[in-house]
Amino acid sequence: MAVVSYIGVLCLLLVVATSVGELSKPNIVILFADDVGYGDIGCYGHPTSSTPHIDKLASSGMLFTQFYVGSPVCSPSRASLLTGRLPPRTGVYPGVFQANMTGGLPLNETTVAKLLQEVGYQTGMIGKWHLGVGKNQKYLPTNFGFEYYLGIPYTHAQCPCVTCFWPNDPCLVNCKPYFTGCPIFHNNEIIEQPADLLTLNEKYATAAQNFIAEHSSRNQPFFLYYAFQHCHAPQFAGKQFRNSTLRGVFGDSLAEIDWSVGQVLEEINKQGIADNTLIFFSSDNGPSTQHKAEGGAAGLLKCGKGTTYEGGQRVPGIAVWPGKIPAGVRTAELASTMDLLPTLVKLTGSELPNTTLDGFDISSVLFSGGKSQRDTFFFYPQNPRHDIGVYAVRYQQYKAHFYTEGASECGRDNHDVDCRPSAKLTKHNPPLLFNLNQDPSELYNLNTDKQYTDILNHITQIYKHHVETMDWTQSEILKPTDPYVEPCCTPGCEPFPSCCQCHRSNPYSMPSPHVLQIP
Amino acid sequence: MAVVSYIGVLCLLLVVATSVGELSKPNIVILFADDVGYGDIGCYGHPTSSTPHIDKLASSGMLFTQFYVGSPVCSPSRASLLTGRLPPRTGVYPGVFQANMTGGLPLNETTVAKLLQEVGYQTGMIGKWHLGVGKNQKYLPTNFGFEYYLGIPYTHAQCPCVTCFWPNDPCLVNCKPYFTGCPIFHNNEIIEQPADLLTLNEKYATAAQNFIAEHSSRNQPFFLYYAFQHCHAPQFAGKQFRNSTLRGVFGDSLAEIDWSVGQVLEEINKQGIADNTLIFFSSDNGPSTQHKAEGGAAGLLKCGKGTTYEGGQRVPGIAVWPGKIPAGVRTAELASTMDLLPTLVKLTGSELPNTTLDGFDISSVLFSGGKSQRDTFFFYPQNPRHDIGVYAVRYQQYKAHFYTEGASECGRDNHDVDCRPSAKLTKHNPPLLFNLNQDPSELYNLNTDKQYTDILNHITQIYKHHVETMDWTQSEILKPTDPYVEPCCTPGCEPFPSCCQCHRSNPYSMPSPHVLQIP
Repeated sequence: MAVVSYIGVLCLLLVVATSVGELSKPNIVILFADDVGYGDIGCYGHPTSSTPHIDKLASSGMLFTQFYVGSPVCSPSRASLLTGRLPPRTGVYPGVFQANMTGGLPLNETTVAKLLQEVGYQTGMIGKWHLGVGKNQKYLPTNFGFEYYLGIPYTHAQCPCVTCFWPNDPCLVNCKPYFTGCPIFHNNEIIEQPADLLTLNEKYATAAQNFIAEHSSRNQPFFLYYAFQHCHAPQFAGKQFRNSTLRGVFGDSLAEIDWSVGQVLEEINKQGIADNTLIFFSSDNGPSTQHKAEGGAAGLLKCGKGTTYEGGQRVPGIAVWPGKIPAGVRTAELASTMDLLPTLVKLTGSELPNTTLDGFDISSVLFSGGKSQRDTFFFYPQNPRHDIGVYAVRYQQYKAHFYTEGASECGRDNHDVDCRPSAKLTKHNPPLLFNLNQDPSELYNLNTDKQYTDILNHITQIYKHHVETMDWTQSEILKPTDPYVEPCCTPGCEPFPSCCQCHRSNPYSMPSPHVLQIP
Repeated sequence: MAVVSYIGVLCLLLVVATSVGELSKPNIVILFADDVGYGDIGCYGHPTSSTPHIDKLASSGMLFTQFYVGSPVCSPSRASLLTGRLPPRTGVYPGVFQANMTGGLPLNETTVAKLLQEVGYQTGMIGKWHLGVGKNQKYLPTNFGFEYYLGIPYTHAQCPCVTCFWPNDPCLVNCKPYFTGCPIFHNNEIIEQPADLLTLNEKYATAAQNFIAEHSSRNQPFFLYYAFQHCHAPQFAGKQFRNSTLRGVFGDSLAEIDWSVGQVLEEINKQGIADNTLIFFSSDNGPSTQHKAEGGAAGLLKCGKGTTYEGGQRVPGIAVWPGKIPAGVRTAELASTMDLLPTLVKLTGSELPNTTLDGFDISSVLFSGGKSQRDTFFFYPQNPRHDIGVYAVRYQQYKAHFYTEGASECGRDNHDVDCRPSAKLTKHNPPLLFNLNQDPSELYNLNTDKQYTDILNHITQIYKHHVETMDWTQSEILKPTDPYVEPCCTPGCEPFPSCCQCHRSNPYSMPSPHVLQIP
C-alpha cells in the first residue's frame, strides 16, 4: 500500500477522471543534485537543512520514499538516468570518468533527450554532465540529443580548485591540480576556464531561466535536464549563501541548489506553463560521508555513496505536475531514475528504443495512485565486475545482499564498520536478507529465520536469472587516458594544463560576478 | 536562523500584525505519543510509516526539528511536560512508576492543567498517565487539575497482556503477569479491567471526540491532554489497523495513533473551533530499539530511549493554530515540552507557579517567527543520581557529554555499541563535544580541536552552575512498593491479582467492541 497523505487522497479524487493520454505534450524538467542523500532535504527529515523551495516542490507533488538510482556513484548513475539501463549495459563502469579519459557514454546509447527530440521537443542541458568529454568533445551532451548545453562536463573536484567560498575562502577538499581548470562549455565551446565557483550556481540558474523563457514562447514543448555541481565536495557558495544556513558549508551549498530550484519554479510560473510542466527532482547517489560534517546524510539508511546498501542508492525523488500529479502525496512505491525514460516515452508518444531497458513505466503511480510495475531492483557496486555481477537484489519489500563491500566515499572512520573501505568484498551464502519496509536501516538480518526460506529461494532465482542474462558492454572507463583530451580553450598552449584560460561572453546574458540578484 | 519554508514566510507576513495578547483564550489540545522517535513519522522522513493525519497536522502548522523532552524515559518525561520542570526537581526518578508503587507526582507540584483550570479552563485527560496511582488513587490525574480522566494510568506493558492484535493474535512482548489487569479508569473509578487492547484506541478517540464536542458548546475554553498508549511495546492494533501498513506491527500501532489524530481534527473542525484551538503533538521519548523492527526509529539521531544521546530525547514536535501559527513552517529553534507550561501561561493569562521552572515561553517562535528564549538544554539520564547529576548540556548548537551510558531500551545488539546496555557509565574529561546543527548524529567529536576550547569552557561553566544550583526533590519512585495499591475494581477479592475484573458502562457512550466506525 502506498503511503498517501490525506491531502493527496483528496487531490487524487479530483484528477482520476483525467486520462494522461489526452494531454498535449508537457514540458519536462529534471533537476538532479549531486551526492545529496536520502536524509539531506528538509522534507526528508533533516533538522537543519534550509530547503524551502524543494520542500515546497514536495508539498506541490509526490514525494517518493523508495526511489533508487542505477549506481551508487556519479557517472554510471547519470548514464542510467538518461538511458533507462543498468551500468553493465551502458559500459559506464567501473567508477567514474576523469577529465583525461578517452571514453564516454557510447554514442549508440539512446538517451531520453534524443527520444524527446525526435517527437518535437526542444532539448537542453545545464550543469554537470559526467558522461565523458573525449577527443574532439565527441561525448558532450550535444552528441546525445541535447540542442543546448551549458556547464562543467564533470565534477568540479576534477579540476584544480582554489576559492570555494565568498569572498576568498579556500576549498576544503583537495581537488586535482594536474587537470585543466574547470571548463564551462556552451555547447561544444569553452566560454570560461577556469570556472569561477562563486558565481557558477547563479550562471546555471540564469541559463535555466533563460532556456525556459525562450522555449516557452515557442509552439514546441521543451525538455530541460539541469544537473547541479552541488553538493559534491568541495562545497562552495557565493556571497548570498556563504554562512547562510545552520548546517555549515554543506548547508550553504545545498541552499544554492534550493535557491536554484526556486528560480526555476519562479520562471515556470512567470511563463504561465506550470500546469503543462512535469518537474522531477532527484540526486545521483547517496552522501559522501568521508567528508563528515561537510558531506551529506542518508538519514536512517545504512552507509552512503559507493555502497550497495540503501544509503548508497536510495535518494530523494519528487515529481510535480499541478493538476496531474496529486499534491502533498508521499508514496512508498518502488521507482528509479531508470523508470523516467519509459515513463516519459509513454507520456510524450515517443518510441521506446530498440534495446534492453531496466526501467518501468510508472505513469500509474504518478497519475492514478496505482501500483508500481517495478517489484525488483538490482544493486551494482561502484566497480562492477563481470565475474561477480550484481551485489544485491530487492524483490518487493525484501533485499538480499549476495555480496557486500565498504567504500572509500563512506570514510575510513565511519561509525558503521560495514561502510568503511576496510570492509572488503564479502560473499554471503545464504545472502543477508532484510525486510526494508519494516527495517529500512538494514539492521536485522532474517536469513537464519526459516519462515523466510521461500522468499530467499525466490530472490535467489531472480538473482541467478539476472546474472545469467545480463549483457555486459565493454567498459568505457577502462579505455586509455590522454592528457590532451582534457578540455582546454587554448589548444596547444604552454605550459599545459595551467595555460588553459579564457573568458568569453555567454550566449545567455549573465550577471556580473559577485553580484547576485536574489528575489 | 530558523529553517522557515517559503509557504511559512508568506503566512507569517499575514499574521505578524495580530498580537496574541488580544486573543480570547484558545482551546488547547496536547497529543502525546509513547516511544515514538524522531524518525518515525512520515513528515520526519520515515519511508513506510502511514501517518497522513499527523503529516497534515505538520503541513497545517509548525514542525520543530530540535524539540526535546525532559527525560529519555516515560514517567519523568511526562512530569516535565506537565510541570515545566526537570526530573530532579519533580522527584519523578529514577526510572518509571510501576503499578505497585506507592509514590507519584508530588501533590504540591503545579501542573499546567491546574493553572489553566484556575483561569476558567475545562480540563480533561485521556490515556496513559504514568505519574503514579498510589494509595486511594491519590496520584491520579483528578488530583492534578484534570476534571475528567479516562485511561489506563500507566503503560499496558505493566499489566498481564494476552491478545494484542485482531482477531486474537498474542502480544509479541512479555508483559507483567504479576500485576493486576490493565484498568481503564473513568476519573477515580475503574470501568473496565482488564482492558481490551483491540478496542482501547477507539475508546480513547471516542472519549476525546465527546470531550471536545461537549466542552465546545459551553462558554469556556477547554484543555485536553490526550496521551496515547501507542507505540510502547507490546504493539497492538484492532481490526481496522491490523496489517494495514507496510511497516508491520509498529506501523499498525502508529496508524492507530494517526487515525486518532484524524478523529480529533475532524471533531474540532466539526465544532467549528479550529481557529481558536492550539494543538500540540509530541512524544514522551525516543524509540525503544530493543524491539528491533517492532520498535521505533530515531531517524538520523544517535541511540534512542533511555539514553542522553539525541535519539533518546529529541522527538517530533508539531504546533498548529490556524491563522495564528504559520502553516507549513519547519523551525530548528530549540524548544522542549517543558516550554509548554510557561508558553500556555502567557497565552491564557494564567499565573506562573511560585517554583523554579526549566521551561521558557516560546510564544515568539510560534507566533511571530522570533528566536527561542531557550539556548540551553540539560540532559538527565533515565536513572539520575544526585552524586553525578546532569549527563549532557546543549548550549546553542553545541552539546557536551560529561557522562554517557548505554541503555537496555536500545537493545543488547544495537548496531552502535555506544547505545548498548554494555556501554557502562563513562565520565568524559574533557567532555565529548558535538556541533548538532552540522552533525545531528553526534558522530564527529570536536573536543580535541583547539578552536572549540572557548565553547567547551563556556559549556563547562554552565554545567557547573547547573549542578551546583539544582534542587533535588526526594525520589518518589524509590518509595516502598505495595501490591495492594495496584488498581483493582473489586478490592479484597481472591485470588488477587487475577480476580480484578469488571466491565462497567462508560460515561461517554462507546461503540461495541470490535465494531469500529472509521470515517
